[in-house]
Amino acid sequence: MADKRFYSVAGPFTLEVLAEAAGASLADSADGTAQISDIAPLDTAAGGQISFLDNRRYVTAFEQSVAGACIVHPNLADRAPNGMALVLSDQPYMAFARAARLFYPTPTVEPGVSPMAHVAADATVGEGCRIDAGAVISTGSQLGARCHVAPNAVVGDGVVVGDDCLIGAGASLSYCLIGDRVMIYPGARIGQDGFGFASGPGGHLRIPQTGRVIVHDDVEIGANSTIDRGSGPDTVIGAGCMIDNLVQIGHNVQMGRGCVIVAQVGISGSTKLEDFVVIGGQAGVAGHLTVGAGARIGAQSGVMRDVEAGASLVGAPAIPSKAFFRQLTALRRLSDKGVKK
Amino acid sequence: MADKRFYSVAGPFTLEVLAEAAGASLADSADGTAQISDIAPLDTAAGGQISFLDNRRYVTAFEQSVAGACIVHPNLADRAPNGMALVLSDQPYMAFARAARLFYPTPTVEPGVSPMAHVAADATVGEGCRIDAGAVISTGSQLGARCHVAPNAVVGDGVVVGDDCLIGAGASLSYCLIGDRVMIYPGARIGQDGFGFASGPGGHLRIPQTGRVIVHDDVEIGANSTIDRGSGPDTVIGAGCMIDNLVQIGHNVQMGRGCVIVAQVGISGSTKLEDFVVIGGQAGVAGHLTVGAGARIGAQSGVMRDVEAGASLVGAPAIPSKAFFRQLTALRRLSDKGVKK
Amino acid sequence: MADKRFYSVAGPFTLEVLAEAAGASLADSADGTAQISDIAPLDTAAGGQISFLDNRRYVTAFEQSVAGACIVHPNLADRAPNGMALVLSDQPYMAFARAARLFYPTPTVEPGVSPMAHVAADATVGEGCRIDAGAVISTGSQLGARCHVAPNAVVGDGVVVGDDCLIGAGASLSYCLIGDRVMIYPGARIGQDGFGFASGPGGHLRIPQTGRVIVHDDVEIGANSTIDRGSGPDTVIGAGCMIDNLVQIGHNVQMGRGCVIVAQVGISGSTKLEDFVVIGGQAGVAGHLTVGAGARIGAQSGVMRDVEAGASLVGAPAIPSKAFFRQLTALRRLSDKGVKK
Repeated sequence: MADKRFYSVAGPFTLEVLAEAAGASLADSADGTAQISDIAPLDTAAGGQISFLDNRRYVTAFEQSVAGACIVHPNLADRAPNGMALVLSDQPYMAFARAARLFYPTPTVEPGVSPMAHVAADATVGEGCRIDAGAVISTGSQLGARCHVAPNAVVGDGVVVGDDCLIGAGASLSYCLIGDRVMIYPGARIGQDGFGFASGPGGHLRIPQTGRVIVHDDVEIGANSTIDRGSGPDTVIGAGCMIDNLVQIGHNVQMGRGCVIVAQVGISGSTKLEDFVVIGGQAGVAGHLTVGAGARIGAQSGVMRDVEAGASLVGAPAIPSKAFFRQLTALRRLSDKGVKK
Repeated sequence: MADKRFYSVAGPFTLEVLAEAAGASLADSADGTAQISDIAPLDTAAGGQISFLDNRRYVTAFEQSVAGACIVHPNLADRAPNGMALVLSDQPYMAFARAARLFYPTPTVEPGVSPMAHVAADATVGEGCRIDAGAVISTGSQLGARCHVAPNAVVGDGVVVGDDCLIGAGASLSYCLIGDRVMIYPGARIGQDGFGFASGPGGHLRIPQTGRVIVHDDVEIGANSTIDRGSGPDTVIGAGCMIDNLVQIGHNVQMGRGCVIVAQVGISGSTKLEDFVVIGGQAGVAGHLTVGAGARIGAQSGVMRDVEAGASLVGAPAIPSKAFFRQLTALRRLSDKGVKK
Repeated sequence: MADKRFYSVAGPFTLEVLAEAAGASLADSADGTAQISDIAPLDTAAGGQISFLDNRRYVTAFEQSVAGACIVHPNLADRAPNGMALVLSDQPYMAFARAARLFYPTPTVEPGVSPMAHVAADATVGEGCRIDAGAVISTGSQLGARCHVAPNAVVGDGVVVGDDCLIGAGASLSYCLIGDRVMIYPGARIGQDGFGFASGPGGHLRIPQTGRVIVHDDVEIGANSTIDRGSGPDTVIGAGCMIDNLVQIGHNVQMGRGCVIVAQVGISGSTKLEDFVVIGGQAGVAGHLTVGAGARIGAQSGVMRDVEAGASLVGAPAIPSKAFFRQLTALRRLSDKGVKK
């Protein structure tokens, strides 16, 4: 059960209501009128709670769970323990997400401007915004409706933010235009100068960076991630992109819709990611490349060339996953042979 | 000598007092009544100062040093220059740490709440706390005794912090419970939403994250590191863990006691580290794994499977260190052969 | 054209003026009296604008550009489209940087101390400084002339900052001396305790860190980068170093002049970089090493030994680039052979 210091839970809901919200269907044996009071992981869920099984790694936990109900793929339904009510879905995790959002809806922002916030006289603050202590809303900036600017966050000169956004504690925005429903987590840095300079025998000379960062709707930007503004063109983050913590996105990068960028990834300047690219943790992509739609780049990989749409690459330099694992095997055999001699 | 703008040094102390504090023993030739006024590195230490030799890389510096005294392993004592007083220890670095803390004890926190801090009316602030300008202590939060909340740090709603903690400049805490003597360095982000969402053809849907971060006693969390809160279970950092800068710790990670996590490491969601695991810089550990007690993971490694207690792994994917270096050699030979042809 | 919400452009300038400022020469066919009103990338530049060609990847864009003028290497001049005025330079990017700075000079800092800033009574603030809302200038610290301390930045006790520096939003400085014209981007952390502790069976014991960070003139430090102070010796960043975002620099690191450190690099404690070392993104350098002047370390490399001046290394562990690519080839061939069998 969630700690009441931090969370309040809605409900209870009947299983029928939950299944419908989840876009899932009740198993024949399940009682749709049963009351469910909370979500919980398989190993700690109690009788009146609902859990989910999505990762086969947890089938044993599923078999041993005493959860009252569970969202599960039909293929695994026969592994359920006796007495567990099943909610069936081809996408158990997505179905669980929908159910979980019934119990824990996004909290409504309570409007108000802290007397310890600093809001410039010419800034525009939409209705229903909450501006916390220490937040700075700079000259000429605009916030849409129902935004929450957390303590000590900074919205820079002229920055435009849409509706229903979160600017996390201590985050800072400059030279950027932010869409609606964008979640910016604590300490993220958006819009600072890119790493742009010319180098000669006398040293390095900074080049003025005159672009912006454009963040489209429904984007999430993780804690302490950094997105540099464009050097002249813009840096663009497409709608629905999910960016984890400590990610670096260089100037002029263009990301399409729905990309998933796991923690500590670095994307170098002027590279283009098409829609729904997925990049595993700590991977790097060199500059001036194009990564095709739906490509998947493994964790810690290093991408040095353009990537075809739909490709699945691993390694540094990144190569197709099959070739990578074949090479690993070849090297291991070679090494073992050496030992035997 | 430490810059007086920033440090003040206690003492002087006699060699005898220092040796005792260090848990070390004086060499027969050393004069226990000699006065020592400061610590210093081997290459800059002067007559009245004490240094240490721990890394064989610095034996030459030791031989050439004019330090008045030095803490050293008995095995290396015969390399000492004439006139240097020796303090002998099997653990010279630990002994030096103890001596150094005599000269430079942790500064006492000077109590006081800055008029430019924001402390919520219903927050609890323990006796002897120092709350600096711009710090925000949010509603329902609790600070133990003698905590120092540095400028512009943010303690979020309902957060509980134990005694004698440091919350560094600009750091932010939310949805977390912090033990005693925890040092959180500037810009660290603790408790924000984990990277949890379900993906389908229509895009990504965030899953409410309803857990916490539990940080046990005597933990250090480095500058700009990020620790996400649990998705339902908690993220747990065991007592005495040392976490360096720019480290990412995903939701539901559980760390045992005394783990050492070097800078820029990433630990993916739901992975468990048992006690005293050591992970080198920039390494990554995939999600849902267990790393056994005392395992050592080399810098830049990529751990993709469970790791046995006590194992020593290197490489990406990580394999036993011996196998890794054998493979390196095999590959080099293969490549050299190709050149000769 | 740059977004007027964020930028204002100087000029127009004649091509002659621009060529002279750029240290470049007009092609014979170019009209030196032509008015140029702005800079722009090749693909979007219009008739009255100047662009540049530096990367051969963009030759096609050059051929198709309708830019009024372009700075280009003489060797590529014959690829220019009809009607484009050419400005010739052996270093087109450096020349462009100079021209761009005419149009977009570094904005003058408008002096003033926000009533919502906190400046300690005994701090020294030079003439012409701008201290924004929420900034904290702590006791005993000194700022030179014309510094800009952005919102919620923190200058710690006793810190000394030279003239014409930027301390970005939310950045924090402690235990450090900063030169002139140093740009510190948002969220950078300078001067916190290094990762220094002694480990024994009973756990880890922190060693007092009694050094400083010395940052010489004309350095840039990227967003959310972290530079730990020395343990006794100082951490030193040489004049003109360019440090990108999310870089970690350990205690006692010494960097010479003009080093270029790309995003997410980690440099371990007590390592020395001589002048003009270049380290690609996400690379790591182990501790207690020396990297010779002008050495180039590829992205994601792992340096485990001293590096000779001028060397070019890649891989983890890092080896000479030629050997690295030869090994890649050898491994690919070996793997392909296995498949054919």
